[in-house]
Amino acid sequence: MRVYLAGPDVFLADPLARAARMKAACRARGLVGVFPLDPLPQGDPEDWAGLPEALRIARRNEAHIASCDVLVANLSPFRGPSADVGTVFEVGFMRALGRPVFGWSNDARPFAERTRAFFGVAGEVDAAGMLIEDFGLADNLMIDGAIAASGGVFVRRAGPDWQDLSAFESCLAAIIAS
Amino acid sequence: MRVYLAGPDVFLADPLARAARMKAACRARGLVGVFPLDPLPQGDPEDWAGLPEALRIARRNEAHIASCDVLVANLSPFRGPSADVGTVFEVGFMRALGRPVFGWSNDARPFAERTRAFFGVAGEVDAAGMLIEDFGLADNLMIDGAIAASGGVFVRRAGPDWQDLSAFESCLAAIIAS
Repeated sequence: MRVYLAGPDVFLADPLARAARMKAACRARGLVGVFPLDPLPQGDPEDWAGLPEALRIARRNEAHIASCDVLVANLSPFRGPSADVGTVFEVGFMRALGRPVFGWSNDARPFAERTRAFFGVAGEVDAAGMLIEDFGLADNLMIDGAIAASGGVFVRRAGPDWQDLSAFESCLAAIIAS
Repeated sequence: MRVYLAGPDVFLADPLARAARMKAACRARGLVGVFPLDPLPQGDPEDWAGLPEALRIARRNEAHIASCDVLVANLSPFRGPSADVGTVFEVGFMRALGRPVFGWSNDARPFAERTRAFFGVAGEVDAAGMLIEDFGLADNLMIDGAIAASGGVFVRRAGPDWQDLSAFESCLAAIIAS
């Protein structure tokens, strides 16, 4: 079973070491981990030759996701109260393909609590006067909703700790059990 | 042509007034705007009855997107250097359906410049030591890449100004012209 490893892990100081750790954890459970920085097995299609590198990366990741049976997303808060947008794009992409999405986060707080802490406010709106979603979920309801509807789970651990992969490993165990 | 109006506009103080403005702009061009807070024309399926409201909203929005021909996303920065994650989820969802995605933002700065300003740093990494993507794009490359690959455009105006819909209207004009 091929597992797409979505996450801002690609932005860590040594993303290839991270990829190796995550793929080893997959392999130990009989899963094949696919990291966003992997080349496509068949190489890039010829008609991408004129595209800037950034747009080729985007298409490569879409092709990776389409080639996988399940997606596991690192949804730890990134540069704000919510998860990394590139990762969340990929969660939405896989959800539309109708396949299971699993999420993990090294932040156990509910989304509303985390958002209030980020802005230093106590009420129903943020510093810009925008409503703070307060459904007791881990992040924006499209994310929690997609994971639940797809048959996945959202595993949260206290953090922050970018090196702790225990919540990720719990997702892999849940994939095997599902 | 049905247009899904993705965006954090749902979190504004008066989301229904915003919906009315955006739908009127669609109607003026012969388009039908579908706002995330709209009920489903056929009502919620019976088997959603046991779901918490947040998860019903998520499924309703997925159904809205699937019923639309094109998606227009408000990708203005939201609670950080990037767009709202709920909106970006929906961009990924529509992209996987293979239909056109258009984006607009009331922030004209490139993503890297905006991210550096957010953290008050000048180099290649953010305050947590994570790489700052620097491809000259408007946001994370999955977003810009999906819009370009789908045949859409990403319209940016200087901001911030949550009330200025001119970039949104430029997207509608581009949809008509495409």
